[in-house]
Amino acid sequence: MQFADRLNQVETSAIRDLFKLLGKPGIVSFAGGFPDSAMCDVEGIRTAVNAALTEDGGGALQYGATEGYPALREQLASFMAGKGAQDVAPEQLIVTTGSQQALDLLAKTMISPGDKVIVEGPTFLAAIQCFRLYGAQLVSAPIDAQGVQTDVLEQLMAQHRPKMLYLIPTYGNPSGATLSLARRKRVLELALQYQCLVVEDDPYGDLYFDAPPPPSLLALSPQVPGSREWLAHCGSLSKVLSAGLRLGWLIAPPELLAKAVMCKQFSDANTSTFAQATAAHYLRAGRMPATLAHVRKVYAERAAGMGQALRRELGAAIDFVPPQGGLFIWARLTGAGGKIADAQELSPRAVEKGVAFVPGAPFYCANPDRATLRLSFATADLPKIEEGVRRLAQAL
Amino acid sequence: MQFADRLNQVETSAIRDLFKLLGKPGIVSFAGGFPDSAMCDVEGIRTAVNAALTEDGGGALQYGATEGYPALREQLASFMAGKGAQDVAPEQLIVTTGSQQALDLLAKTMISPGDKVIVEGPTFLAAIQCFRLYGAQLVSAPIDAQGVQTDVLEQLMAQHRPKMLYLIPTYGNPSGATLSLARRKRVLELALQYQCLVVEDDPYGDLYFDAPPPPSLLALSPQVPGSREWLAHCGSLSKVLSAGLRLGWLIAPPELLAKAVMCKQFSDANTSTFAQATAAHYLRAGRMPATLAHVRKVYAERAAGMGQALRRELGAAIDFVPPQGGLFIWARLTGAGGKIADAQELSPRAVEKGVAFVPGAPFYCANPDRATLRLSFATADLPKIEEGVRRLAQAL
Repeated sequence: MQFADRLNQVETSAIRDLFKLLGKPGIVSFAGGFPDSAMCDVEGIRTAVNAALTEDGGGALQYGATEGYPALREQLASFMAGKGAQDVAPEQLIVTTGSQQALDLLAKTMISPGDKVIVEGPTFLAAIQCFRLYGAQLVSAPIDAQGVQTDVLEQLMAQHRPKMLYLIPTYGNPSGATLSLARRKRVLELALQYQCLVVEDDPYGDLYFDAPPPPSLLALSPQVPGSREWLAHCGSLSKVLSAGLRLGWLIAPPELLAKAVMCKQFSDANTSTFAQATAAHYLRAGRMPATLAHVRKVYAERAAGMGQALRRELGAAIDFVPPQGGLFIWARLTGAGGKIADAQELSPRAVEKGVAFVPGAPFYCANPDRATLRLSFATADLPKIEEGVRRLAQAL
Repeated sequence: MQFADRLNQVETSAIRDLFKLLGKPGIVSFAGGFPDSAMCDVEGIRTAVNAALTEDGGGALQYGATEGYPALREQLASFMAGKGAQDVAPEQLIVTTGSQQALDLLAKTMISPGDKVIVEGPTFLAAIQCFRLYGAQLVSAPIDAQGVQTDVLEQLMAQHRPKMLYLIPTYGNPSGATLSLARRKRVLELALQYQCLVVEDDPYGDLYFDAPPPPSLLALSPQVPGSREWLAHCGSLSKVLSAGLRLGWLIAPPELLAKAVMCKQFSDANTSTFAQATAAHYLRAGRMPATLAHVRKVYAERAAGMGQALRRELGAAIDFVPPQGGLFIWARLTGAGGKIADAQELSPRAVEKGVAFVPGAPFYCANPDRATLRLSFATADLPKIEEGVRRLAQAL
């Protein structure tokens, strides 16, 4: 059978092979990219779904508008207002089947084969593959602890004239890095100057440990007049409420949003109204602040615990910047003391010792740094984190 | 803003403009393409979701395998076995976000720009647009009351060497037509002979009024050895259980299925596990046969009622074959007695009189028959159907 040419753009994932090993009994996994379902507010969601079925059973079980279930769009607009984006009307956002679908719709709407897209090096693996399936030529922009380096970014934009710039400005995946306020403003200016759509993917911004992060690009956009016309923002309930509801949203300029809705109509018609009505009731019940406070507290403890254990057990052999939020520690093997400095070499040894992580190389669309690795602290409790890090030290 | 070239392939829908008019108070709508949500088994679904949250709350609210929630894949394999496709293992099907997503994934996996796809004339509008977004060149194959005309189809296949053949063999949308048993076998032979993937879209096959339809292409495929390698089957719970769950499935040869899973990973990662776990519990509880029996009975009454009313009120001015299942009567204006013979001309007059239908022309990818129209009997009760048909007669 002859498949579509676009599949040639996508490599089979190195991560997939790793995940096959995770079934090994007793393994401690730092490899996941997902939240801890044990923290899920099951009873709150049960209350919400029962209320949704009682109040609008017909609507919740019927097809719905491609743009989203109206009550959820309203709740999400309020949720965004609570995060500093106070001028987002319900009509300016559409509900998507997870924020992954928002990326898919943006690529389908914007990218012709050969178009350039700048992404962070490293960035979210499924964004790389998603864009490549639409024929995007990816360009990697370097980052540091303050996020993407805007001086280099400007050079790349001038050189490549990209159609799109994809960023996870807050607690990036895999980097954990957060773009500084000054750089955020610069990104908005560059978007305007180079007439390039900036996609702000923000699934982690609510997961701060101590102080909230700088305002999102969306919240800042009024400070750079005209930049809003070149900005798309992707939100998600997956990391804060439930990934199983598969609910994300896309905020974008009106013309782009209308095209994305058309594409969504022929992608999945609409996102599950059953899940949407449930989330609308959950948000309306006012449970979200307590849920977020709980999740932040637990992840903060785990991040601190993992950081301390890494320093203690691996010492100079590993280097990382402690994250201020999110799910990940992004680290680099230094090779100090003659230890392994290639994460892909370390990975099978670690699995043998009973701990798993994700080597960093696949997160780069070009020029991978093979010394890097991603460690998730989200799904293991503190004793497991300590045990896992001890095993990692043994493997090293 | 410069959008992707692929959007140029898609026309804005004539149907969309019509739907904007449907808000008019008191209008009787035969225009919908959806089931009647009043028939939804809300309490059965409530029981199912509560059981799902109790038994596997963590799993139902977490990310899941891209292929689908295992318990649902098992239930769907059993469901297919009950419909005569007895050799479908759970691993041979994946769960999709409605069967619309199955079409999207098939097109993404199979179609390079310029590839030919044969569809029925008329066919499902969202399939036409979905395929065009991936650059498909569509070829229209004529149908009659027995479905696609296989002798013409063979000529078209020989001439165009299509990559894919898309059919709704049972109670087609919009045609209501059902492919005869002999033609079903012929289609499987042609698929094999021309090495062309046949896509059997089957959302309506469970909605028969009297006798069940002929076996699906999938169920028949063992009679044409080798044909299974060229057959994809799309199923859906939307018309029989709930469209709001957004659950469909795709059965396809292993290599194709693996590629479709990869595409799905970057489209929406996985279908809502919350909805999947709910449907799994619903099916496992054994409620489906009673639900189907109820839905069939009600639609059969409405179809008969609409057919009788059309004969009585419009007489020789309209021609149609009474459907044996599904949601639609596909009719032709004859122009008898000097009456209007163009459905697009009739449509605004009908809305003015307080009744809506969908003109048939947009359902053709080429050479539209402007005398055709689609009337849904699914969502109006018998008195409303009678009233709507009287208004239609007035408009004519």
